[in-house]
Amino acid sequence: MDLECASQETVKQGLLARGWPPIKGFSKHVKTKVFEFFSHLIKLGQDDPRRVVHSLKAGLALTLVSLFYYYQPLYKSFGVSAMWAVITVVVVFEFSVGATLGKGVNRGLATLLAGGLAVGAHQLANLSGRIGEPIVLGFFVFLQAAVSTFVRFCPQIKARYDYGLLIFILTFSLISISGFRDDEVLELVHKRLLTVLIGGSTCVIISVLLFPVWAGQDLHNLIASNMEKLGIFLEGFGDEYFKMPEDGESKEDRPFLQGYKSVLDSKTNEDALANFARWEPRHGRFQFRHPWRQYLKIGALTRKCAYRIESLNGHLYADIQAKREIRSKIQETCTTISMESGKALKELSMAIKTMVQPFAADIHIENSKSSVKNLDTLLKSGLWDDETDLLEVVPVATVASLLIDVVTCTAEIAESVNELATMLKFEVVEPTVSPEKTETGQPKIGIS
Amino acid sequence: MDLECASQETVKQGLLARGWPPIKGFSKHVKTKVFEFFSHLIKLGQDDPRRVVHSLKAGLALTLVSLFYYYQPLYKSFGVSAMWAVITVVVVFEFSVGATLGKGVNRGLATLLAGGLAVGAHQLANLSGRIGEPIVLGFFVFLQAAVSTFVRFCPQIKARYDYGLLIFILTFSLISISGFRDDEVLELVHKRLLTVLIGGSTCVIISVLLFPVWAGQDLHNLIASNMEKLGIFLEGFGDEYFKMPEDGESKEDRPFLQGYKSVLDSKTNEDALANFARWEPRHGRFQFRHPWRQYLKIGALTRKCAYRIESLNGHLYADIQAKREIRSKIQETCTTISMESGKALKELSMAIKTMVQPFAADIHIENSKSSVKNLDTLLKSGLWDDETDLLEVVPVATVASLLIDVVTCTAEIAESVNELATMLKFEVVEPTVSPEKTETGQPKIGIS
Repeated sequence: MDLECASQETVKQGLLARGWPPIKGFSKHVKTKVFEFFSHLIKLGQDDPRRVVHSLKAGLALTLVSLFYYYQPLYKSFGVSAMWAVITVVVVFEFSVGATLGKGVNRGLATLLAGGLAVGAHQLANLSGRIGEPIVLGFFVFLQAAVSTFVRFCPQIKARYDYGLLIFILTFSLISISGFRDDEVLELVHKRLLTVLIGGSTCVIISVLLFPVWAGQDLHNLIASNMEKLGIFLEGFGDEYFKMPEDGESKEDRPFLQGYKSVLDSKTNEDALANFARWEPRHGRFQFRHPWRQYLKIGALTRKCAYRIESLNGHLYADIQAKREIRSKIQETCTTISMESGKALKELSMAIKTMVQPFAADIHIENSKSSVKNLDTLLKSGLWDDETDLLEVVPVATVASLLIDVVTCTAEIAESVNELATMLKFEVVEPTVSPEKTETGQPKIGIS
Repeated sequence: MDLECASQETVKQGLLARGWPPIKGFSKHVKTKVFEFFSHLIKLGQDDPRRVVHSLKAGLALTLVSLFYYYQPLYKSFGVSAMWAVITVVVVFEFSVGATLGKGVNRGLATLLAGGLAVGAHQLANLSGRIGEPIVLGFFVFLQAAVSTFVRFCPQIKARYDYGLLIFILTFSLISISGFRDDEVLELVHKRLLTVLIGGSTCVIISVLLFPVWAGQDLHNLIASNMEKLGIFLEGFGDEYFKMPEDGESKEDRPFLQGYKSVLDSKTNEDALANFARWEPRHGRFQFRHPWRQYLKIGALTRKCAYRIESLNGHLYADIQAKREIRSKIQETCTTISMESGKALKELSMAIKTMVQPFAADIHIENSKSSVKNLDTLLKSGLWDDETDLLEVVPVATVASLLIDVVTCTAEIAESVNELATMLKFEVVEPTVSPEKTETGQPKIGIS
C-alpha cells in the first residue's frame, strides 16, 4: 500500500512538475497578458511623466483629506459627514487644473443652490401635514430630477455645467427627502457644504501648487504640434511623391508621413481642453480670458488642411502613377510648393510655441504662392505634346490642384495665427534672427 | 408736505412705469435670453422626443428609490445608508441601456471588490496597534489611489472600466478609513453593497422596460445615416458642379450639400456608442456579441470617403472654374459616376437599416466603375485641341480624380457592409423588389 501511495505521489508530483498542459497553457497566457499590461503601463508613464505625478498627487490629496477620520477633534465636529470630503476629492480631482477647478466650482455652487432649495422644499412639505408631506416631497424630487436631466441635454450647458446639474439633482434629492427636523436639515446642509468646500479646495490647492497641469497650455501645445505634423508631411511629400518606385524600398514604411492622421480626429480633444482652459486663472503667458475660441478656429482650419493632406496621401500610394516625363516637368515646382507650405506651417507652429510674431511664415507663404504662379505659367505654356493622353496627366494635375488647395489652407491658417498674435501681442523678433532659419535654410524672396 | 409726497410718488410711479432705462434694457436682455433658452429646450425635445421620455424616466427612478426614506420599515433597516441607493440612481441612470448597464455593473463590482479589500486592509491595520493603525491605513489609501488613478490613463481600461476604478478608489477609501470596529465595518460593506444593488437594479429595470434606448440601435442608425448623408451629397454634386454660376442663385445656399460635414467628426460618437453597445443584452435584431467592431470599421471607411468629399466640396465653391467646353465634355460621365456612387451609398445605408443584403448597391457600384472606365477612354481619346491650356483642365481633372477616389472608397465601404451582411446573415431580397428601386430609378446594367 505504502509503495502504491508513493508511486501515486510520484505520478502526481510529476504531473505538477511538468504542469498539466491546459493549466500550463493558461498560466502562460495569463503571464503574457500581465506582462503586456505592465509594459503598456510603463509606456504610458514614459510617454507623459505628468501621469505618474498626477497619480501621486491624487493619492496625496486623498490621504490628506482622510486625516478627518484619524484626527479625533475634526472627526467629532463632522462625524460621518467627513465622508463627503473624501468623496469630493475622489470625484473632483482631475488631470488638469481647469478640469479640477471646473468640477470643484460646479460641485460647490450646485451643493449651495440645491441645499437652499431643498430646505425650502422640506419646509413647504412640512406644512402639508403627515400624509401630504411625502407626496409633496416626491413631486418636488420628480420635478427637479426630470427638469435638470432634460436641461443636461443642452450642448452648451453640458459642456460647462453637466457635473453641476448632476450634483444639483443629488443634493436636492438627498436633503429634501431626509426625514429630519428643520434644524437638523439646516445643519446637514451646512456640514455638507463645508465638507465639499474642504474637499474641493484641497483638490484645487494641490492641483495648482504641485506641478500644475494647465489645460490651456496643453491646448496651446496641441494646436502647435498639430500644425507641425502637417508641416512635416508637406516637407516630405514632394520628395516621396516624385521618387520613382524603383528607387528603393516601399513608401508605406515612412512613419513621419503618417503623423498627420491624428490631426483628423482632434476636434473632441481640442473642444474638451478649451472648456477646461476657460476655468483656469492667469498662469504664465496665459490670461484668465485668453482667446481660447481663436485656438479652436485655428484648430478647425488645421483640420481642414489635414483633410486635403489625407487626399494627397491617397495619391502617394496610388497604384496608377503618372508617366515619368510628365511628372518630372512639374516636379520642381510642386516640390517647392509642398516644401514651402510645410515650412510655413512649421514656422507658424514655432511662432505659437514661442509666442513670437510669425514673420518667417509669411515669407514661406509668399514663396509657395509664387510657386503656384510658376506652376500656372508652366501649365499654360503647353507642357505636353499632342500624343500625351489626358489620362496620364490627371494624377499629376490632381496632386498639383490639391497642393494649391493646401497653399490656400495654409494662408488661412497663417491669417488666423496672425489674428491670435495681434490679440496676444506676440513678441516681435526680426526674421533674420529666428532660430528656425538656420535649419530651414535662407528664405527665398521674389521667386516670381 | 402731503402734496410734495404725492408729487414725489407720481414721479416715482412715472419712472417705474416708463422703466429706468438701464434696468429696462437689462430686463429686456434677460427676457430675450430666457426666451431663447426655452425655445432651444423645446427644439431639443422636438429633435429627439426620447430625451423628454428619458428625463421623465430619471425622475421616476429617483422618486421610486426615495421611497426608502418615506417607508418606515425600509428606512429602519438601512438608515442613512439608504442614501447610497439615491446616489447610485443619480449617477448610474444614463440615456442608453448600455451606458446604464455599464455604469451599474462597474459600480456593483467595484463596490464588492473594494469593500472586500478594504475590510482586509482594516484588519491588517488593526494588528499594527494604536499608533501604527493610521499610518498603515494612510499608506494603503495612498497606494491604491495612486495605482488606480494611474491605471485609469490606460485607454482600453478608460473606455470600459473608468467609472469602476473611480468607485473602487471611493469605496476602498471610505470603508478602510472609517474608524469603526470590525463587525461594524462588515455591516457597512454589506449595507453599501445592498443599497448600491437596489439603486443599480432600479436604474437597469426602468431603463430596459420603459421605452428603452439601445446604444446598439443608435450606432446602427448613425452608421447608416452617415452613409446616406454622403450619398445625398454625391447624388446632388454632379448637377451642382456642372451648373453654370449664371444659371441662378448662389450655390452656397444648398443645405442638402452640407449634411456630410457632421460625418467628418463622428469618430468620438461612434466609439462611445460602440462601448455602450457592448454592455447590452440581446434585443431586437441585435445579439449580445454583435459585431460592433465591424460597425466601427464601416464608420472609419465612411469618414475616409467624407474626407474626399470635403475636398470635392472645396471645388464646388472654387473661384476658378474650368472652361465650359472642357467641363461639358466630361459632364455626363462625371455626373453618372457621382450619381451612381451616391445611389450605391444610399442603397448600402438602406441595406443596413433594413438588414437586407445590399444587392442593389453592387449594381450601382458596377455602374460607377464602368463610368470610370468610360471617363478613362474619354480622357485617352484626346479630349482637347492644341490651344487648350492645361491650367483650364486642372480643376476638371481634379474633380474627376477625386470622384474616382470616391468610387474606390464606396467599393471599400460596400465590401465591409457585405462582410457585415455575412456575419449577421442579412435577409436576401431580390433587387427588383427593393423598396428603394422606384425612388432611385431602374439600375442600368452593362453601360460599358
